[in-house]
Amino acid sequence: MTQTSPVGLHRVLAPAGALPQAAERLDAAPEIGPDEVRVRVERLNLDAASFRQLATKHAGNGDAVRAEVLEIVATRGKMQNPVTGSGGMLVGVVDEVGPESPLGLAPGDRVATLVSLSLTPLRITDGLASWDGRSEQVPAEGHAILFGRSIAAKLPDDLPSDLAMMVMDVCGAPALTHRVVAGYEQPSVAVIGGAGKSGSLALAAARRAGARATVGVVPVEHEAESLRAAGIADHVALADARDPVALAAAVESALGHPADITVVCVDVPGCEHGAILATADRGTVIFFSMATSFSAAALGAEGLAADVTMLVGNGYVPGHADLAMDLLRTEPGVRELFERRLAHEAG
Amino acid sequence: MTQTSPVGLHRVLAPAGALPQAAERLDAAPEIGPDEVRVRVERLNLDAASFRQLATKHAGNGDAVRAEVLEIVATRGKMQNPVTGSGGMLVGVVDEVGPESPLGLAPGDRVATLVSLSLTPLRITDGLASWDGRSEQVPAEGHAILFGRSIAAKLPDDLPSDLAMMVMDVCGAPALTHRVVAGYEQPSVAVIGGAGKSGSLALAAARRAGARATVGVVPVEHEAESLRAAGIADHVALADARDPVALAAAVESALGHPADITVVCVDVPGCEHGAILATADRGTVIFFSMATSFSAAALGAEGLAADVTMLVGNGYVPGHADLAMDLLRTEPGVRELFERRLAHEAG
Repeated sequence: MTQTSPVGLHRVLAPAGALPQAAERLDAAPEIGPDEVRVRVERLNLDAASFRQLATKHAGNGDAVRAEVLEIVATRGKMQNPVTGSGGMLVGVVDEVGPESPLGLAPGDRVATLVSLSLTPLRITDGLASWDGRSEQVPAEGHAILFGRSIAAKLPDDLPSDLAMMVMDVCGAPALTHRVVAGYEQPSVAVIGGAGKSGSLALAAARRAGARATVGVVPVEHEAESLRAAGIADHVALADARDPVALAAAVESALGHPADITVVCVDVPGCEHGAILATADRGTVIFFSMATSFSAAALGAEGLAADVTMLVGNGYVPGHADLAMDLLRTEPGVRELFERRLAHEAG
Repeated sequence: MTQTSPVGLHRVLAPAGALPQAAERLDAAPEIGPDEVRVRVERLNLDAASFRQLATKHAGNGDAVRAEVLEIVATRGKMQNPVTGSGGMLVGVVDEVGPESPLGLAPGDRVATLVSLSLTPLRITDGLASWDGRSEQVPAEGHAILFGRSIAAKLPDDLPSDLAMMVMDVCGAPALTHRVVAGYEQPSVAVIGGAGKSGSLALAAARRAGARATVGVVPVEHEAESLRAAGIADHVALADARDPVALAAAVESALGHPADITVVCVDVPGCEHGAILATADRGTVIFFSMATSFSAAALGAEGLAADVTMLVGNGYVPGHADLAMDLLRTEPGVRELFERRLAHEAG
């Protein structure tokens, strides 16, 4: 393998010319090219939408979920859910670094990959024997390949690695929220799904970037209580994000007006129109949910004659992992929400 | 009908709480509320995807297509294709204007609606007797209702109405392109599908907004010839937009570097990664194609470690119809492309 591409084109087996994410099958051979890195896998962290789809399909049967994940990885050379298209991330230890790799990694570094599993060549060698198929956190043995243009972050020494991973998995949301909020003059910000992982980080990032007022919207009272206790939002509102009128009313009632910036962090379909309706003229909606429908957003804004900027939430913003880690370290409320979730998932 | 909603909630019959576009059934009663407008319909312009679905389903049998359109409108109170979810637009004459309507219309105005038929209350009274069921252009008698927050544009006196309608149908693209280009310092701009309706207007808008250099990308040589002859792009490049590597190479070769702004105007799936790869760091991709996949865009940018802003092309920007008409009037190359297309569709 002498000629390698920084975006991994040389690993695509089919169809020809596709990028690794769009590819049906990748070559996960362990031999690395000059700008590649091979990582010894310790754990996969499946994307929430992907895991939910698998768990629902198999009615919570962990053995069936595990069998399907193994089948996907064996067939595709990567862990990309064929229905949701999404992947997740992984934690591992750097095994070998090609002489021309620009990633700044060294053998022995413990890293989390910040590019999706949906484009990362992966081979699993332990049959996922240590996983019960009932959690997004998948202990695994095997190897993965990073390309020249991949992103991987060293795991911090001062944080448990499962906590760090959970943060890194959603670190694009606070970074992009910070950038958008900083581009307005003291805007008001609504975060739909404010008690979740990306949502709580987005709320903290909005405040740090200079938001005048923030509201976290959650669907149920116990989430509202957690979010109030965390103290990271100026207001907490209850609404079903799939009900456009109720969502817009909840945001307006909390802020006194529509939000300048609305951040959608809930992974359920049908939140596009509510988010648009909750946003002020010349405002911005940032869609981080993979359940977002492009046409529902585009046609919805047109149908509502809403002059709003709508952003596809890009998971990559330079410095995103550092910002998210810093928010976790400095905002006890954020850390509390993450630790509670971690305990819940572990339990 | 005393209490009306600017977005038409009071016209939704089922399901309760839905917005008009998501609704199954609307109330198309002719009596208007204080902020509504009733339009006497002259012609419907079915959305291309919707008409194609109907024509295919009925194997080109015009009578069957007509019967189904009548059935849809009678049942749903709007012309929304249940399979594609799309509608189209209409041309008519303003009949009655509520005293509180903010649309600035007067009885007798000839208008085109710029919100989709998929959310416009509609009743047809002539059984579509003048339509053969074989074209997207549907002569019709009946009435339609515009809400407080609807959008309708007066048809210009100096342009044929089929030409004006064709322009209005895509007028969101040049308006948003203009806004984004004006937000950069003399950016370079690539328009994928530059010889099409939205694409040619976007190219003209980019130049007017101060683009340093523009490239129109087209898939086949005869489109390249048309675009060169139109003289609205600084460069014309040939590439299949579904091939990310080829698309990025074509843009880079034409401009000498990746584009600061890439505008996607081709209605084929799979253009997300090529558009991202063709765009410079801190650049912007505007997706106008309804074939765009949200997750392909989001995960693609992350997978390519691409720090690009990605916009969902919002069909509504204030002043969009005026800008598009002005570009058509002042850019002979744009008008030529539109007239050729009109002749082709009529023929």
